Amino acid sequence: MIEKLKVKPTNRYRNNAKAIGIGNTFWDNSEHHGLAGIVADLQRGRLYTQEGHSFVNFSCCSYLDLDSHIQVIEGAITALRKFGVLDHCIPRTRVQIPALLELEASLSELFEAQVVSAISASVATSGILPLIASGHLTDDERPLMIFDKNCHVSMQQVKPICADETEIVTCSHHDLDFIEDQCKLYERVCYICDGSDSLGGYAPVKELTQLQECYGLYIYYDDSHSISAYGKRGVGYVRSHIDCLNDHTIITATLNKAFGASGAAILLGDRSRETLRIIERFAGAISYSQPMNIAAIGACLASADIHRTKELHTLQYKLQSKIALFDSLVPTAQAGSTFPIRLVPAADSEVITLGKLLFEAGYYVSPVFFPIVARGTAGLRVMMRTGQTDDDIRGLAQVIINNRLLSEVAK
Amino acid sequence: MIEKLKVKPTNRYRNNAKAIGIGNTFWDNSEHHGLAGIVADLQRGRLYTQEGHSFVNFSCCSYLDLDSHIQVIEGAITALRKFGVLDHCIPRTRVQIPALLELEASLSELFEAQVVSAISASVATSGILPLIASGHLTDDERPLMIFDKNCHVSMQQVKPICADETEIVTCSHHDLDFIEDQCKLYERVCYICDGSDSLGGYAPVKELTQLQECYGLYIYYDDSHSISAYGKRGVGYVRSHIDCLNDHTIITATLNKAFGASGAAILLGDRSRETLRIIERFAGAISYSQPMNIAAIGACLASADIHRTKELHTLQYKLQSKIALFDSLVPTAQAGSTFPIRLVPAADSEVITLGKLLFEAGYYVSPVFFPIVARGTAGLRVMMRTGQTDDDIRGLAQVIINNRLLSEVAK
Repeated sequence: MIEKLKVKPTNRYRNNAKAIGIGNTFWDNSEHHGLAGIVADLQRGRLYTQEGHSFVNFSCCSYLDLDSHIQVIEGAITALRKFGVLDHCIPRTRVQIPALLELEASLSELFEAQVVSAISASVATSGILPLIASGHLTDDERPLMIFDKNCHVSMQQVKPICADETEIVTCSHHDLDFIEDQCKLYERVCYICDGSDSLGGYAPVKELTQLQECYGLYIYYDDSHSISAYGKRGVGYVRSHIDCLNDHTIITATLNKAFGASGAAILLGDRSRETLRIIERFAGAISYSQPMNIAAIGACLASADIHRTKELHTLQYKLQSKIALFDSLVPTAQAGSTFPIRLVPAADSEVITLGKLLFEAGYYVSPVFFPIVARGTAGLRVMMRTGQTDDDIRGLAQVIINNRLLSEVAK
Repeated sequence: MIEKLKVKPTNRYRNNAKAIGIGNTFWDNSEHHGLAGIVADLQRGRLYTQEGHSFVNFSCCSYLDLDSHIQVIEGAITALRKFGVLDHCIPRTRVQIPALLELEASLSELFEAQVVSAISASVATSGILPLIASGHLTDDERPLMIFDKNCHVSMQQVKPICADETEIVTCSHHDLDFIEDQCKLYERVCYICDGSDSLGGYAPVKELTQLQECYGLYIYYDDSHSISAYGKRGVGYVRSHIDCLNDHTIITATLNKAFGASGAAILLGDRSRETLRIIERFAGAISYSQPMNIAAIGACLASADIHRTKELHTLQYKLQSKIALFDSLVPTAQAGSTFPIRLVPAADSEVITLGKLLFEAGYYVSPVFFPIVARGTAGLRVMMRTGQTDDDIRGLAQVIINNRLLSEVAK
């Protein structure tokens, strides 16, 4: 019998076998200990499992609790009644009902940018990065693409696609020197990173802007974690630190997190109609008949309206007071930052035990671990929201402090 | 002055410069002649532009007009009121409210499969294909992946990612001999194709099932164009022709087209809980906190309920009568097929003129052209729906026939 051929992977840009091999064990452990695969009803800000356990979610990215804001929900319903359709299925490049255009006009005004919508931030990224790679968004010259080592997996995942359209390289986290060196070497360079990291912290926007001024560096930011939660009218961290959005910067942000709805916004500088058409026609799934649905559009319009009122400022202020309270109780490396995420470090072997004790006490805090974070940097990712009470935060902090002591005693 | 480096693309699996270079000219032409970039209000099945022109959409994939079905819209609204949130932003692998599980249970029962949801069919594909490539869905052995030359661009686009995890190859359209030859050569093979082509026509499911029986071939079908429109309870073409969905077959289908809502369903055979967890945790954007929103879930639940009643059969029957009427008036290569799409061929130079005449007469039919179809196979893609009246179809056919005559006279 002739032996059949087996294939060989190149694994130049990704390696499922490795990532899943390690990651899945940890997920299994998490689920085994009741810290993953939880199903619960949401009622007035608390979650209730079928087994009768109730808890506060400290791992939800709806930082301003706009997701359950009555105006946002009613906005979705109003749009459904007005348009009478969830999605009239045809690519928008051909025929579209005015809903998406209305939303994009509203978000463009709100964020002082030209906004193109997408069904999710990852769809935005998979659509935009290949167009950057082929030079269609970088003045008709293919750039060297520098991916930040820590950029979100939704960007990492597009690497092989970009690598077929241009050259790509990965740099250490926020390695400004490396980026500058490449700018000196290459005709065009584009840097890809998170504007706000999912583990807390911001990109060095000012320093990067200087590189743009010196060398014409292009930058693609995913600023999903700071939109709405940060800046005047919730424009987010990156947009707040750029006076005028130029055509060398693209910011993508989800509308699922603090914005409280569903979908994504791609913030562009003053781009030509021609370039906008290329995005609409050729940016991957953005060009298919799978746009944001009418309910999401209605919810986003309502949320955008809230962003224009004092209420947003009040919500942002409330969020900062929750963050400050947590910082006063639990010291972390992120203390003092406006960012709503804190990483309470824990040994790889302890992170699940700690998470379990917290959950039993009524607080869900997600354990994070490789491949979500690098090996040896595991911990509990605590996420603050305006909807959490001061008592919730004090209660959570108490359990953390008690167990840290226990953990130190055990050493 | 030292000259800076320019990058070089490999363009092994894709070439934006080429695709956009050719495609964009045609889109520009389409838009220049008013056949793309149309904005119109939808009212009781007709579209109305701001300029006062009204037309019937013959290029919409909501084949059964379920998208504007009152129960579907009310389903979305009911779910929004019930859950009070559009999306409670946290990966479902950690904590989820029961909505998605309820939907997946309903769709699993309806389609006699294990269903995993995704926000869109392209997100489903970008999530699943890399897991196939790395052997995680093919019994722990990486398969040679054969992409059908004509498979939808959402699958083509994932080629470079799959090529980093395994070996890939492209075959001619439905080339059963080639597939069989590879099955003889390689230990594992997976074939990727449309179950129902976006230009009309079905995959040779029976012949492919035979190859599965002989060689253990794996198949990934995108059956977006036939779900709901075809088969008992709308299970679609592929599922209708497979007695029992085995673990060698995966069918993805959008819920945006005939299903009338928003989102996608991945139909799996009897997979282990472990495999389902791997999909939930590692299938790209399926694992991020960007799931189908509550409105989409509610609409899908309502549509699924309609699929269980006689109404679905009535709608399917009505669709077939519309198709038959068109076939009786305009001969095409697809005549006689149950598929709701007909391609009326036209020369590359004429396709826009014909489309324009039709639009002026009150019928929107999308012109198709490279890169959507191969060069020299341009035409008008006519899509039938239950909501079109017999008069609409007769009127459309009349314009086509008149212009075909004109076109032939001109030769």
